[in-house]
Amino acid sequence: MNTLGRIFKISIFGESHGPAVAVLIDGCPAGIDINEDDFTADLERRKPGASGTTPRKEEDEPKIISGVFNGKTTGAPIAILFENKNVRSADYDAIKNTPRPGHADFVLNKKFNGYNDHRGGGHSSGRLTVAIVAAGVVAKKILQNIQIHAKLIEAGGNTNIETAIQKAVEQQDSIGGLVECRVQNLPVGLGEPFFDSVESVISHAIFSIPAIKGIEFGSGFSATKMKGSEHNDAIIDAAGNTKTNHAGGINGGITNGNELYFRIAVKPASSTPQEQQTWNNATQAVESFTVKGRHDLCIALRVPVVAEAAAAIALADLLLVNKLL
Amino acid sequence: MNTLGRIFKISIFGESHGPAVAVLIDGCPAGIDINEDDFTADLERRKPGASGTTPRKEEDEPKIISGVFNGKTTGAPIAILFENKNVRSADYDAIKNTPRPGHADFVLNKKFNGYNDHRGGGHSSGRLTVAIVAAGVVAKKILQNIQIHAKLIEAGGNTNIETAIQKAVEQQDSIGGLVECRVQNLPVGLGEPFFDSVESVISHAIFSIPAIKGIEFGSGFSATKMKGSEHNDAIIDAAGNTKTNHAGGINGGITNGNELYFRIAVKPASSTPQEQQTWNNATQAVESFTVKGRHDLCIALRVPVVAEAAAAIALADLLLVNKLL
Amino acid sequence: MNTLGRIFKISIFGESHGPAVAVLIDGCPAGIDINEDDFTADLERRKPGASGTTPRKEEDEPKIISGVFNGKTTGAPIAILFENKNVRSADYDAIKNTPRPGHADFVLNKKFNGYNDHRGGGHSSGRLTVAIVAAGVVAKKILQNIQIHAKLIEAGGNTNIETAIQKAVEQQDSIGGLVECRVQNLPVGLGEPFFDSVESVISHAIFSIPAIKGIEFGSGFSATKMKGSEHNDAIIDAAGNTKTNHAGGINGGITNGNELYFRIAVKPASSTPQEQQTWNNATQAVESFTVKGRHDLCIALRVPVVAEAAAAIALADLLLVNKLL
Amino acid sequence: MNTLGRIFKISIFGESHGPAVAVLIDGCPAGIDINEDDFTADLERRKPGASGTTPRKEEDEPKIISGVFNGKTTGAPIAILFENKNVRSADYDAIKNTPRPGHADFVLNKKFNGYNDHRGGGHSSGRLTVAIVAAGVVAKKILQNIQIHAKLIEAGGNTNIETAIQKAVEQQDSIGGLVECRVQNLPVGLGEPFFDSVESVISHAIFSIPAIKGIEFGSGFSATKMKGSEHNDAIIDAAGNTKTNHAGGINGGITNGNELYFRIAVKPASSTPQEQQTWNNATQAVESFTVKGRHDLCIALRVPVVAEAAAAIALADLLLVNKLL
Repeated sequence: MNTLGRIFKISIFGESHGPAVAVLIDGCPAGIDINEDDFTADLERRKPGASGTTPRKEEDEPKIISGVFNGKTTGAPIAILFENKNVRSADYDAIKNTPRPGHADFVLNKKFNGYNDHRGGGHSSGRLTVAIVAAGVVAKKILQNIQIHAKLIEAGGNTNIETAIQKAVEQQDSIGGLVECRVQNLPVGLGEPFFDSVESVISHAIFSIPAIKGIEFGSGFSATKMKGSEHNDAIIDAAGNTKTNHAGGINGGITNGNELYFRIAVKPASSTPQEQQTWNNATQAVESFTVKGRHDLCIALRVPVVAEAAAAIALADLLLVNKLL
Repeated sequence: MNTLGRIFKISIFGESHGPAVAVLIDGCPAGIDINEDDFTADLERRKPGASGTTPRKEEDEPKIISGVFNGKTTGAPIAILFENKNVRSADYDAIKNTPRPGHADFVLNKKFNGYNDHRGGGHSSGRLTVAIVAAGVVAKKILQNIQIHAKLIEAGGNTNIETAIQKAVEQQDSIGGLVECRVQNLPVGLGEPFFDSVESVISHAIFSIPAIKGIEFGSGFSATKMKGSEHNDAIIDAAGNTKTNHAGGINGGITNGNELYFRIAVKPASSTPQEQQTWNNATQAVESFTVKGRHDLCIALRVPVVAEAAAAIALADLLLVNKLL
Repeated sequence: MNTLGRIFKISIFGESHGPAVAVLIDGCPAGIDINEDDFTADLERRKPGASGTTPRKEEDEPKIISGVFNGKTTGAPIAILFENKNVRSADYDAIKNTPRPGHADFVLNKKFNGYNDHRGGGHSSGRLTVAIVAAGVVAKKILQNIQIHAKLIEAGGNTNIETAIQKAVEQQDSIGGLVECRVQNLPVGLGEPFFDSVESVISHAIFSIPAIKGIEFGSGFSATKMKGSEHNDAIIDAAGNTKTNHAGGINGGITNGNELYFRIAVKPASSTPQEQQTWNNATQAVESFTVKGRHDLCIALRVPVVAEAAAAIALADLLLVNKLL
Repeated sequence: MNTLGRIFKISIFGESHGPAVAVLIDGCPAGIDINEDDFTADLERRKPGASGTTPRKEEDEPKIISGVFNGKTTGAPIAILFENKNVRSADYDAIKNTPRPGHADFVLNKKFNGYNDHRGGGHSSGRLTVAIVAAGVVAKKILQNIQIHAKLIEAGGNTNIETAIQKAVEQQDSIGGLVECRVQNLPVGLGEPFFDSVESVISHAIFSIPAIKGIEFGSGFSATKMKGSEHNDAIIDAAGNTKTNHAGGINGGITNGNELYFRIAVKPASSTPQEQQTWNNATQAVESFTVKGRHDLCIALRVPVVAEAAAAIALADLLLVNKLL
């Protein structure tokens, strides 16, 4: 349930307001250089603090507690732990009676018969993406010269990101965004024709990220409006390079060696400062309320590095699985 | 690689031009009524023959060869086999030298060092979706009063499907389409917060279908342009019903009991009658060619029943897994 | 439930008195020579007919229905089917009321609420081992120069097998046996320290064979009576060869390059011609009865080739998994 | 690789001389009472200190770092961590050149190209069984009124355990042992006919414990010497109770409701104080050496609680999986 992958397997655990969040990585080859500084750059990119992101100061110090010896992976499972600091639980007490719209409060309560840790979303918190980012750093090392790059290309429907954020701050309402991810230097042959198509494996990983509601590969939804003669990418050499790349680097579920790219839809954060309505279990009526606590107005700003991580994890696993056959 | 699911597991096998294609279903509860007639309706919906679909006459007679006794499932693995008839292999000899654009010819050849059965796409053929549809029929029985309904809502970018098909036939060029799938009566609580979110599990299954290049849940890509106060669905009663349904029935990766819906992008079939260009391994140059054989101009017409099957399979598995917890 | 392996995955299906039994193999590398004659030798070794085995004439003709093209594996799933012939169902009607001691009649009925195919054990029948043997033939091809050899070394507690069988025939009572399996030329490094130790993976596969009740690796149970100074195998060269081999080729769950060997305990077949007692659901009393039908007096005679297959399947998977790391 | 189970999944990580060893448990139902004191009794039973066990003082304080809230499981992954204290690494430096006989030094070095943490066996250390015991405590809670009890029934081939230990101490040589495990109150119907037979699943878990070299269920190896008429257990009532229990509570791979029991062979600890011979990579010759450090003379004394844990983990998973079908 909380594990992804077949050979390169990652499991995340921990809660937003518990002692720590962490990732366990099994199946990582031995002999890869890893130290705690390797995580800094990607953790910084995920951090809140920029305009439009939550002022909650998360100090993300990775502690490698297993699987690394003398600065190199040993082949044993790698656990990376982030202790939680700066936690204010009191903010969340109201959730018990008033499930926040858009959040998982209502479904978690039903699913776990009320036993879930509701503080800050508990195990469901976006805080857990710090663990995914950490696994991504390790995955990227396995990928070696394969390059993954994601960026926010639209916020609130606007390509001028800064303006969109500024407007969100002014209006005090959260906004969504569009993230694009591009991968270069993939070998031909990753993925399977059906159940483990590259699209299946990547989308599975990407939809693990909170707030993602859509994904499209290559021309994606605009391909529905194209003709076959337009959409087909002519192969122009023996290496399989194509003239166009509407397929996004994938044919029949398998990488074709051209750039792999996809776009993902990030919904606006459910925690908006605006007044909202929800069912109140205490009063047994629909009532107005306002979300308290420290939250992001544009979570899409923090998604690119998480999307890269998810893609890197999926691709590292495909690479290790496909070496075999 | 060719298996989907954790408890309700399906595996597909066979080739387009081999003796048969088939599905193996493990983990199906005992005591469910199944007979060969149960498959007729969905197999008919998948069949070619309508305007815009291939004139290849596929006679899909399911043979249940295990797991059913006296008309009921036994709890043992269920195998359903479709013998291939009406096969013309000669059409495909040219593929060896001229990998068809948009098809998997090139990648399969590389991935399997030329050992793949290239006739009609071999194991990668859309023919295998007959096995997915058969598994879907069994999955729907497990789902009982949960209703799944998919339909083509756009062809070639046009909501008037018939006109779009007619135009494609006139222009002799394949076209894509948009399929929408809606599921009613799902219980609250299916899915997990991260790696097995409902979106992860459904998208994994849906991208197993050839020609799918995008998926969006609820408001999907249009959510990127919305504000949090607009997108959030106000909870209006103790059962979790919501005023709007932008989330598409899923919060935090978990079903919320409201209608689950998603849309999928179907690209135009790679086999278009139009002249195309590709690399020719014999002449070592880019050359023009025309795809021969019998093909669909609008494969999207045949996708809805396959999408329903994929969704039913994913949901049956989620239902069986989540009963536990 | 009916699948074994992580990369080289086999699934078996079918029933003793249904249309067929079969095996599905996923994850087999492409380019391996396979034809139907390759199965003959091992299938012959499994066949009944020798003194002490059932006179039921099983004609085991493997039909490869997928995954092989032009005499070579394609990388797609391989299905091998054995049609059932020579089936007499009437023999088994009594089982419904009088669950046979030692057999699974009682537990299957409870587990599947009476929906199981009870004829000849249905999916639980020893007949299914023909599918395991077929998978073993494919696995042995992957193992290449790794040699696996199993033989019956005791029947009814007697090392003179022939005499033991003769006595069983005279006494008309089934007997057990001891099978030893030896594997040469394994590389160092297969297996994992804990959950996927070589012993874990092999024993998991071996206990899949009906009638197996014990397994021991190397000195096994006699090691419980040894001292450390006796049991330890001194390493005598840089390649890891050891002076003795009490460990059976496995240290800390991982192959050490020396011969791997294990012994397995085969219980006497539950179907003995002797009169027995069991609960009768019709009369609600313990009653005497005699098993009818055609059965083996010493099933252990047929176990070696199945044990080889199970070991080969487990080792092929370990080999493919460990290539990675 | 380092994960066991399908629904109730446990993963262990950490090294003998690293910062901690730990277990991650996924798939545990919500609402189960758990607190750190629950672990005390079983951890005590595993502890060294008794005569015949290592004087290394392991202070095993479990820290629950996720998955438990207000004293109850939440349904989220449960991580239990044991910090390592009292670590003396210098003892192990010699291992690099002189792989200890019986230990995994040689195979780990080959398998991981020398990158493994060799100190005290690293991730392969028996120290990791503390994590298995902790998972066992949680598993036992799921099993509720199912009772598991393992005990040492022979040490060094002797049923008088105390005498055997005393002799081992006098002779300063390690000894093996025989452990028996009995499980009462299991429901009928756990397990599958072939690949996930109860014997397969339990043996897989049991062979994860270091030093185990054999397992037998019910009459086990002595069944090889019995006749069918002797071995078969007559069913004496509608509940499936049997007159004898040679089958050890399992028919056709499935629990039959009678007591399940098995015995396991524990080899003598590889670390014996006696002088031994091994290959020395520095001198390129076989040389004598003596293992230093603090070790157990009879590790079998500490195995029962670990075997109970392994069995409980396997049975909890079977119980959760089989609820479904």
